[in-house]
Order: sequence, then structure tokens, then C-alpha cells
Amino acid sequence: MTNKVKITFLGGVGEIGKNMTAIEYNDEIIVIDAGLTFPGEDLPGVDIVIPDITYLKTNKDKVKAILLTHGHEDHIGALPFVLNQLNVPIYGSRLTLALVENKMKEFPNVKYKAISVKPKNVLKLGSFVIEFIKVSHSIAGSLALCVTTPVGNIFHTGDFKIDFEPIDGEMTDLVRMGELGKRGIKLLLCESTNVCRKGYSMSERSVGRTLDTIFEKNPNKRLFVATFASNIHRMQQILDLAEKYKRKVAFTGRSMINVSEVASKIGELKYNRDIIVDIDKIDKYEDKELLIVTTGSQGEPMSALTRMAAGEFKKIKLGENDLVIFSASPIPGNEKSVYNVINAIYKLGADVIYDELADVHASGHACQEELKTVHSLLKPTFFIPVHGEYRHMKTHAQLARQLGMEERNILLPSLGMQVELSANSMRQSGFVTAGQRLVDGIGIGDMDSNVLKERKQLSEEGICVVVVNINNVSGCVTSEPFIITRGVVYQDEAEAFVQDAKAAIIASLKEQDLRGAEPAVIKSTIRRNISNFIFKRTKRRPMILTIVTLE
Amino acid sequence: MTNKVKITFLGGVGEIGKNMTAIEYNDEIIVIDAGLTFPGEDLPGVDIVIPDITYLKTNKDKVKAILLTHGHEDHIGALPFVLNQLNVPIYGSRLTLALVENKMKEFPNVKYKAISVKPKNVLKLGSFVIEFIKVSHSIAGSLALCVTTPVGNIFHTGDFKIDFEPIDGEMTDLVRMGELGKRGIKLLLCESTNVCRKGYSMSERSVGRTLDTIFEKNPNKRLFVATFASNIHRMQQILDLAEKYKRKVAFTGRSMINVSEVASKIGELKYNRDIIVDIDKIDKYEDKELLIVTTGSQGEPMSALTRMAAGEFKKIKLGENDLVIFSASPIPGNEKSVYNVINAIYKLGADVIYDELADVHASGHACQEELKTVHSLLKPTFFIPVHGEYRHMKTHAQLARQLGMEERNILLPSLGMQVELSANSMRQSGFVTAGQRLVDGIGIGDMDSNVLKERKQLSEEGICVVVVNINNVSGCVTSEPFIITRGVVYQDEAEAFVQDAKAAIIASLKEQDLRGAEPAVIKSTIRRNISNFIFKRTKRRPMILTIVTLE
Repeated sequence: MTNKVKITFLGGVGEIGKNMTAIEYNDEIIVIDAGLTFPGEDLPGVDIVIPDITYLKTNKDKVKAILLTHGHEDHIGALPFVLNQLNVPIYGSRLTLALVENKMKEFPNVKYKAISVKPKNVLKLGSFVIEFIKVSHSIAGSLALCVTTPVGNIFHTGDFKIDFEPIDGEMTDLVRMGELGKRGIKLLLCESTNVCRKGYSMSERSVGRTLDTIFEKNPNKRLFVATFASNIHRMQQILDLAEKYKRKVAFTGRSMINVSEVASKIGELKYNRDIIVDIDKIDKYEDKELLIVTTGSQGEPMSALTRMAAGEFKKIKLGENDLVIFSASPIPGNEKSVYNVINAIYKLGADVIYDELADVHASGHACQEELKTVHSLLKPTFFIPVHGEYRHMKTHAQLARQLGMEERNILLPSLGMQVELSANSMRQSGFVTAGQRLVDGIGIGDMDSNVLKERKQLSEEGICVVVVNINNVSGCVTSEPFIITRGVVYQDEAEAFVQDAKAAIIASLKEQDLRGAEPAVIKSTIRRNISNFIFKRTKRRPMILTIVTLE
Repeated sequence: MTNKVKITFLGGVGEIGKNMTAIEYNDEIIVIDAGLTFPGEDLPGVDIVIPDITYLKTNKDKVKAILLTHGHEDHIGALPFVLNQLNVPIYGSRLTLALVENKMKEFPNVKYKAISVKPKNVLKLGSFVIEFIKVSHSIAGSLALCVTTPVGNIFHTGDFKIDFEPIDGEMTDLVRMGELGKRGIKLLLCESTNVCRKGYSMSERSVGRTLDTIFEKNPNKRLFVATFASNIHRMQQILDLAEKYKRKVAFTGRSMINVSEVASKIGELKYNRDIIVDIDKIDKYEDKELLIVTTGSQGEPMSALTRMAAGEFKKIKLGENDLVIFSASPIPGNEKSVYNVINAIYKLGADVIYDELADVHASGHACQEELKTVHSLLKPTFFIPVHGEYRHMKTHAQLARQLGMEERNILLPSLGMQVELSANSMRQSGFVTAGQRLVDGIGIGDMDSNVLKERKQLSEEGICVVVVNINNVSGCVTSEPFIITRGVVYQDEAEAFVQDAKAAIIASLKEQDLRGAEPAVIKSTIRRNISNFIFKRTKRRPMILTIVTLE
């Protein structure tokens, strides 16, 4: 038995998304969140990225539970893969669990136990006592956690903002934070996403006010709002406006339909069922009677809105009497796709309003003054910034220093880092196996796998396949070589290219005495020659595959 | 002979970059700018994108000159390719031409004639009279053009901003704009880049003030500033600060060294040569005596700064006493690369200041109030927004409407569009061949070429090559098939995968009677079978190349 608590960072530090943290005391581990990241164009063909949970698998018997702060994919998305390997109960708010349930439908073989919790609930798990604290965020049912451990209290904010006009009437529980701060917080783990933004985040309700003005000014247009299905409070305001302006609402996009259903079932989203119409029946209504609520605010290629913009969505053709509101900001990396969709909608003659033009979106993450508020209420002894790129965590550490915390009481985490916390000290104690696992079709691979390197080379330089038959006795090429290229030469030049390449191979092989030569030697001769030929011709170095058959 | 002027848009409309516009009267054409675009990750392996100039080549004898508004790549970058096909003189400011000359060194076979012009210069080219007007922008030597034609005056702003505290003491020539407006502007072509931004752009001098404060607050650190080499006024301020704070300046990065040399030679950049030290000799100085001015503000993979961040730059190792200032904003699409470099620098212990944290960069493009100023001074009869994505041009058109211009006097251009202007009308008269040409190694290809589609498929799904020998008489497979995959299966699964794939091919061929079958039939049988096998196994559809040799 030891008198230390270990905190292990398995995700969400030094990168956006894929959040996962483990808190450990002797033979007990609780895990906070199990998220995924959607890969960028630097990971072609990869579907999702999840945390490497080798450490948890190695300590399988210790893991007592997974606690979920909220239902965004970067906090719950890895659950199907994690629960497949760890049979532990999960805890979260009703909405969080409803979203998990919805997701797990695609993984019917993975069984799990889910227990719903509410703000102020207190949960005892072995040596840990966990209190759930209400926070505002861009999804309803978000919770911060205060974990009482034998060495002191650890406060994990999850993702949060402070919204003084919350849509559900319940504010981020600053009062409770004050009480807990008074009782004593040993360690604060606080999100860092918006730490570079000065001041306060915009309130969710002010988005509603902007939307109201837009509805009011456009009484005759057919209106579209693209937003995140999971932003329940945004959805609530949009549905309230539909009611106010007597418009019927049609949902499009699978997640929009699913999530509105799920959220309304558990009472998080309240609306009169009569205002909902099926997307197939909107022709019955005039433009001014309609509001279409759609997915695709991130320019996702297969979403309803992207297909509408491309003129490929059969049920709806966009035109001059349409106004599309993007009630969302582009997630970093999605800017180009989003603006492409906006450009395409404009070209169809419809009007567009997006965050550069009006306050139609509010971030769900705390800005500098909000972060300062939480630091000041909790008054932690030690501080570790989490959830953000390294630059965010670094700036968050500087902010804590400004508020008077000493540098030696702050640690900057990185992936796999283990931190040891005792009643009067905090130190980095080592590193465990951690990292990114790539889910790619059915396969799961590592970040440094050849598959990705090969795809990258293929995408930048293309490939050239050469098949040569050689008579092993005479050393002669017995038939014309086969040459196939993909992604190397442009059409006009293709035929001449292949002819010249064949001639180059034959010429180069004639120069050498290949009688009885090993296939490996012949192969490397061919590879070198064809590679040089192609580089001279195109200034490219495609992947070369050489197949030599000996007769 | 006709009484119309035709304006043809060969680039820079509906996209950022690659600017090129032709103005035509009977058998005379003048071209404004000849720019390139750097491709995003959607064009893997492509080096640069240039305009399709089929239209100019077809009308070769008509083209009288290329007029350059300024020396940024998106305005001059296509010149080597354009001048290779059109032997016409180019006109531009001294700095613009110096940058062109520097660029053309890499294309020694392309001969051209360059004539330098100054603000207020008037140039007669056949039926056209061109007046050059001083404008402020993020590069020195920027010019707007007023083209007097037989049907009236056409004003082309180029890229510009209004800076009331210009570094070179010469403001955007609002007075001349007012005079020209009074004389009468028939058509305004105005850039639209920042039309979504309210208010005024920040002045360049205020960046200098921010930098001054940073220099003052960090007297003992080694300082680094990453910026665009071509932003001569930024460079001037940085060099002035070096002098003020008694620091030696070392340039790193090829373009930084080249451009500072070129600009100082023609007197655009003024500094005391004594303060410059060679990067190889900085060890002689203390940290507090040094300022390193570097390329890499966009996170370019091969730039000096990116290599420093990766610890791969031999001459400089970054550490705790270093402060790196990114005096630039990420160009849309570069955000991830830039933030990766910032994160890496922080991890080395150095401090970083970038545009999210302080006013260390000012845009070179006019915001809404500046655009309104120019519209109001010029009072054009007709208006065509240019330089921007479609959304920018659309918003610019709305801004012109707000200022009182009638909708029928505004046209939204698109690539290849030809507009006919007469003394009292403007109308879209048709479309000419135009588009994007991809420069890729030595090859030049089209946007819709197979090369790119193939590269995209290769990068997302990988490739599988199958070689099968078949005895044409017996229809039997004569030896074990070859199977090579790249970018398809992860290492752990590779061996089993190939074995099973071979077995699947042999089994599938046994089921069919292939005696005397055409190779094409055998190929497609194999392709279908292997594709299904792989999809079942990996949920991927790689490119399949099948090679059948008949014995």
C-alpha cells in the first residue's frame, strides 16, 4: 500500500480530442472519458483515431469504471473499442448515456453496464468518492468531476464554459466550486481549448437572439439551419423559434434525426410534435412555412447540406428564396470544406449567413476570464492543464502563474505521462505505453505503420509496376515487359512514356550479364533503372514494384 | 471595329490566388497579373497551380503587355510559364520586377523584356492608356491601375489596404482616386479578400509598436522573428528595431536572404550593413545581442524555422532563452502546420508569441470601411468584385448594393467569363477556355486528370497488384500467384493476408473454365474476386492491378 495517487494521461493532452485520463490508487483505477479524434488529410483512409489502452489492459483487474463528462465524440467515441476490451460500468448523465446507447447499436456484440448520474450526485467507487458538478457546454448533460482520493481532492472540469443565461436555467455550479475550493482542492485538471481567447465566451442565448432577428427579417424565405445535432440547447432555441414564427420543422441528416429523437425521449429537448414534418412531405408547405434543420455544418462530404449545395440532394433543390444559416464555426482543419459548401450555396442563388457575418454561433469552451473564475474559486494546490494542443496548455500554465500559482506546482502533461500526487507533492513519475491507434476499415494499426507511409508516397508520387520475364539460362528478357503506372504521368504523355520505359528496361538489362542471376539482383537492377528513367522524365520518384519471373 | 471592351477572367475569381485578367479592345489585349496558387492536400504531389492561358495563346498576336500590380506569387508566380508562351513585355514597380528577375533565374531559357513604372506614371499601349496608382499592401511597390479605354475608364485596385501611417510615408493615393472618380470611372474591379471583416485593417505601424514592446520586455533573450520575406515594410521595422536595441541580425531561409538582398539593392529596404551577421557566425554573440529573421511563418516543412522546431537545424538549437515571434497569420489551410511548429517550439522550452496572443501581424487587405472608401471615391458606374472566394465576391456585391449601386450594374465573375463593356452597358457575353493547370514535376496536367484521381484512390485505399500465370490450353494456374499490396494491410496481418488472398484467387479460378479464355476475361474475374476478398477482410477497396501472363 502506498500513499500516492497516480494520474495517467492516455489522451487529450497536446492534441485536440481523444480525451482519456486514468486516476489510480493502489489496485483501483477510474477512467475519465474515452474519446476519439477524426483524422485529418494527413491520415488518408483512416476512419477514426482512438487512444492506445495497453496500460488499462495490462491493469485490467484494477479498472473500476469509466466516468463520462459529456456526450461529444472526443469524450465517448472510443467506448465501443474500449468496452470491447474492458468490461467495466460506465457513468454519465442521461443524455450522455443515451448518446452512448445510440452509438453502441452498431456494436451489438459489446455488452456493457451504464449507470446514469445527475449533478450533485455522489458516487463511491472503492477508495474514490466522486461528486458530479453541473457545467455548461455546447452539449446538454455536461458534468465536471470532483474526485476525493486518500491524498486529497482532484477536480476535473471536463469541457465547460460559464454561461450566465443558460438555456436550461442551470448555470455552471460556481457556488459548489466555491465550497469545494474552501474544503480544499489538491489538484485541478482544467480544459484549455479557448485559453488564447481574451474575455468571456458569448452566451448561448445571444445566438438565439441573433437567430430570432434573422427569422424576423426573412418572413417569406425558406430557412435552413445547419448545426451540430448534439448541441441540444441550440436545437431547443431553433425549435422555439420555429414555433414562434409558425414554421414547420423538417430534420435531415441521420444524426439530426437520431439525436433529436433521443434527446426528446429523455426530456432534454422539448417541442410540440405537431411542428415536425417529414422531409419527404415538405412540398405541401410554402417556403415561408418551413424550417429545415440539417447536419453538414462542417462541410462533411456525405451530409445532407453538402449534397444540397452540390445539387445532388433529391428532396431539396436550393434556390433564390432560400436562406441557409451555418449555426456553427468550422472546426480547425475543416475551414476549406465549409467555405466550399458556402460558396456552392451562394452560386445556386441562395443566401448564406455564417459566423464571419453574424453571431450565429457561440463556443462551448471557457475563455480567459472564465478560466480565471474557476481557478479562483477552486484555489487548487497543484495544477495540470489538459484538453488542448501543447500551445494551449502552455498558455494555460502561464495564466495560472499570473493568478499567483508557483511554477513548481504546475505540470505540463504529455501522452503517456504518469504523475504521482501525494498529500503535499506532485511529480512526474514516468511514462506508460500510450498513443494513437488508427481504426481503418476493420483493421487497427499504429501511427507509425507502413500502411500510412505507403499511402502518403502513393498519393504524392504514384506507383509504377514492372513485370519482366527472364530466361534464367540465357539471361534474356523473353517477352516485352509489362509496365503499369498509376498517378504518375498525365494522359497526353502516357503512351509514349510506357513505350520509352519498356525500351529503357530492355536496354538496361542487355547491358548486364544476367545469366543465372538471383531474382533479387535482377529486381534491384530493374528498380534502379526504371526509377532513374522516371525521375529524368517527370522529376518524380513513384513507388516502384518489380516482379521478375524466371523461366 | 467594335465599340466594346471585353474583360476576360482567367484567374482570381471564386478562389484565392492565381490572379489574371485580360482587357481587350479589337485586336489589342493587355493582361493584368499572372499568378499561381500553392495546392492544398487535395492535390497531392502537385507543385503549383497556374491559369490555363489557352485564350491568350489563341490570341497571341493581340497581347501587348502584362501589367503587374505587385510582386506576390499569386500575381507573378505563373510568369515563367506564361512568358514561355507569350513573348510580351511586362510592366511593374521596381520591387515587383526585381522579384520577377529573381524568380526567372531558374528559367534561363525564357527571355523577356521588363519595364519599370512608378505611381502616377502614364503608359500608352495602343488604344489603352494606363495610369499607375500607389496603394498600400503587405508588399512594397504595390500599384492599382486605371485603364483608359475607348469606352471609358476601368479601375483595377490590385490588392490593397488603406494605411494612414504607411511605413514608406506614401499613402494609398486616395486623392488621385477622388480625381479619377470625378473624371468618371466606368467599371471598378476591386479586390474582396477581407470584405467579411468589419471596420478597418490594422496599420502596419502598430505591428511595429507591438514588436517594440516585445523587444523592450525581453532584453536578455535571443529573439527570432518569422515573417514573409516579401513584406518589406515589416522587414524595415524589424531591422529598425534591431538597430534600436543593438542586436545583430542573421537571416535564415533562402527567400529571406534573397529578398532582403534584392530589396536593399533597389533601396526599398534600408539598413546599416554592419548589423547583419552570417548565420554561421552567431556563436560569437550573446543571446541578447541577436535577432534571427527567418522564413517558415507558414509552417512550411523545409523552412529553417520548421527544422529548428524539429531539432533538425544544425546551426541553431532552440532552448529556454529563446523567444520566437510569428509575425504573420496562418494562410487559410496552413493552420495545422503552423500550430504544429508552435507546439514543437514550446516543447523545446522556448517561448512563442503569435497572432492569437498579440498584435504581431496586420493584414494587407482592405476591410469593409476601406472598401467603402474606395467605392465612394471612385463612384464607378459598373462594378465587378474580384480576388476572393465566391462568398467574398458575393458579400462585396452586397456591400456595393448598400452603397447605392443598382443590382443590374454589378456582375459576379467566374473563371473564363467574358464581360462586354460599352459606354453605357455591361453584360456577360460568354465564356472562354480557362481553368487550372497543374505543374507537377516536369509535367503539366489538368485538374480533372486521372493522375489525381488515381493518387487520391491510392492514398485512401492503397493498391494490390496480382500477377497470375495461366496455361492457355489447360486453363490452369501454372505457378503460385504473386500478390503485392501497399497501403492496404497493417503489418501484423500482412503475411496471413497474402497467403489467404493467394488461396482465394486459386480457388476462384478453379471454379471457372478458363481454357482458351481471353486475358481480359481472366483479368476481370481475378479483379472481382480479389476485390471482394479484400473488402470482406478489410472493408477497403484498394486499386487492383491484375497482370495475367498466358503460357
